[in-house]
Amino acid sequence: MTAELISVGTEILLGKIVNTNARFLAERCAEMGLCVYHQTVVGDNEERLAEAFRTALDRSDVVILTGGLGPTEDDLTRETCAKVLELPLEEDPHTRERIEEYFKNSTFKEIPDSNWRQAMVPRGARVLDNDNGTAPGLILEKDGKTAVLLPGPPGELYPMFTEQVYPYLSGSQPARIVSQMVKLCGVGESKAESQIQDLIDAQTNPTIATYAGVGEVHVHITARVSGDEDADKLIKPLVKEIKKRFGTAVYTTREEETLEMAVVRLLKKYELTVTTAESCTGGLLAGRIVNVPGASEVFQQGFVTYSNKAKRKLLDVNKATLKKYGAVSKETAKEMATGGVFAADADTCVAITGLAGPDGGTEEKPVGLVYIACYMNDHVTVEKYQFKGDRAKIREQSVVRGLDLLRRCILENYAK
Amino acid sequence: MTAELISVGTEILLGKIVNTNARFLAERCAEMGLCVYHQTVVGDNEERLAEAFRTALDRSDVVILTGGLGPTEDDLTRETCAKVLELPLEEDPHTRERIEEYFKNSTFKEIPDSNWRQAMVPRGARVLDNDNGTAPGLILEKDGKTAVLLPGPPGELYPMFTEQVYPYLSGSQPARIVSQMVKLCGVGESKAESQIQDLIDAQTNPTIATYAGVGEVHVHITARVSGDEDADKLIKPLVKEIKKRFGTAVYTTREEETLEMAVVRLLKKYELTVTTAESCTGGLLAGRIVNVPGASEVFQQGFVTYSNKAKRKLLDVNKATLKKYGAVSKETAKEMATGGVFAADADTCVAITGLAGPDGGTEEKPVGLVYIACYMNDHVTVEKYQFKGDRAKIREQSVVRGLDLLRRCILENYAK
Repeated sequence: MTAELISVGTEILLGKIVNTNARFLAERCAEMGLCVYHQTVVGDNEERLAEAFRTALDRSDVVILTGGLGPTEDDLTRETCAKVLELPLEEDPHTRERIEEYFKNSTFKEIPDSNWRQAMVPRGARVLDNDNGTAPGLILEKDGKTAVLLPGPPGELYPMFTEQVYPYLSGSQPARIVSQMVKLCGVGESKAESQIQDLIDAQTNPTIATYAGVGEVHVHITARVSGDEDADKLIKPLVKEIKKRFGTAVYTTREEETLEMAVVRLLKKYELTVTTAESCTGGLLAGRIVNVPGASEVFQQGFVTYSNKAKRKLLDVNKATLKKYGAVSKETAKEMATGGVFAADADTCVAITGLAGPDGGTEEKPVGLVYIACYMNDHVTVEKYQFKGDRAKIREQSVVRGLDLLRRCILENYAK
Repeated sequence: MTAELISVGTEILLGKIVNTNARFLAERCAEMGLCVYHQTVVGDNEERLAEAFRTALDRSDVVILTGGLGPTEDDLTRETCAKVLELPLEEDPHTRERIEEYFKNSTFKEIPDSNWRQAMVPRGARVLDNDNGTAPGLILEKDGKTAVLLPGPPGELYPMFTEQVYPYLSGSQPARIVSQMVKLCGVGESKAESQIQDLIDAQTNPTIATYAGVGEVHVHITARVSGDEDADKLIKPLVKEIKKRFGTAVYTTREEETLEMAVVRLLKKYELTVTTAESCTGGLLAGRIVNVPGASEVFQQGFVTYSNKAKRKLLDVNKATLKKYGAVSKETAKEMATGGVFAADADTCVAITGLAGPDGGTEEKPVGLVYIACYMNDHVTVEKYQFKGDRAKIREQSVVRGLDLLRRCILENYAK
């Protein structure tokens, strides 16, 4: 079966945004075994959209369109596709109700007239509820072809595709794709790849591929499994081998588990509480920990100490230390971590202090220099990093390394 | 003049990489005043590439292809385009020399045979030297149409386009695109659009379009300006009118200014310092403020008080208040904001307390309920929100509304 992607949006044609939706959908299609031979981008223009849709229907079994389902006048996807497929639009009472519900729970006083357009659906359409917005998705089937219309905002598209479209489309696929992830932290992508190059080269099913995130590498093992074949038999030995080669750099083998989730899981397991003492990351480390539902069990408070005065007052960092070594130093990081533990009455503390730039760097202490410390069991481990990239990237990498340092400290101290 | 982009690469169709090249080229084309109505992705397949190229030549003046110029067998762009345009391939001595030169300076001992293919160019082609690889770019002109063939790796594509293709194409362009943004916070997209529908309908040049972000709406005004025309004359009256209609909901008209940058700018202007007291957002609000380089002038410290105990200890929230009204209440938000100001000795404080879910909601206090408070000049403003979406979305919206509340309080108190 072939699938084709059409992204609708003038902002993509103008280069205002990157078409990450197409990548997401292409990846999912590949997982399902759907062959994608074409991706197209057209603007919010009826004529060109209709032409692109007709061409796609002509040469592909499944056409997935994203964008142009919003309430405003330049959102034309629903109407245009209905016209091409010669399906009349009819009001869907269920969607109307959901829109009412959505606005009742929002801060808006009244529902704009234009939003009612979103309740009009082509006859016979399968309506996909949107839990994160007002535009429902639609699946249209006609003459053996399937058209899937999805909202453009990734926050609406991704869950809708994963929860509703993926099962729908993959149900009609004879072979299924089973994948398993091994997530690493603290190893570069090319180094990670070279350590398993022999495995990558030797495999055709499953295949092994590495993907780089910020400070992380994800190793994907993807097997194509037919009917009653045992996916575990194909995948498990490889996972075991990869875990053996990377040791503690592996933080999880669960696809849905993020680094912060792995860290919170370990903290819970060993009944530890953590606090944070942040300078250049300014709360982002605490924010990542609180990403995890139920983090309150291990995290009660955090300190954002951006100024020297705040470091002294909240974390009891020595005035002399700040003067002698500076705020960005091994010594200050150490005192921040120690002070945090005592101020929050926590078992452990991660402290981050560094130069995120763009200004303030010197030859001795260049932008990107970051010290990360972790206090655990009366001992502070400090690591020094020299990160590359802009302010946002330096801060993001610092947070990842902070979480990973905490993870490694727990493993060293408790997982013996 | 119209331009069309064709990206050649199976790895894009498989979702292995994001098509950032298309974004780069689309942005450059918009700058040059070239109208891009279509972007297409095809794989390394001769038949489908030829078809896509023919279609593009048919409907556009300029076709820009990226990828598939490499030395390996699945790199087919050069040969396929030459065939479609009926131009024979001939060896280009200059390119042959450059390839020899390139390998002399590399770590390779000998030049792989396959690389000589890259010296074969269609008759009459303008050859674009590649300073960062072996594949030269090509400009082909035939029957009033222009085809531009460029290497896929961004490190080769970007400089080649900027230094050689941009001047070539823009030389033949009489018009350019000038755009201006008006950014709003606290207004929904459809409401925003309906408030300026008459302006949107009345305009063909400039055009007006709205785009929604989290808690924000961006109004884009885009003008097509020829040679010596005055862009300001076209755009400024519209900006003025839009600002008048939305009043204080407008937080900036600078494209590069984010909401947190606008807030820090106002704090600096009125010489105010701010602190943060966060529960459910767990540091993300402080993190957003610290996004802004130079935020240290207005922000010295922030409090992440996730537990009730931390709210009492760090922010002096009354035990009785927590007991009577609960942690997620107007009263607690108010005391957090007040306590933050005194604990940090700051001029103002934004406090956020809410239920980000997925668990912990009740009928009376459902998931998504968030109180945001701002202390300023001995007065606390508290706002109640009921947000939609998952944990991440609720927290992100809370941060945006927190920043916006601070912004509005500053305007009300100081910008009279």
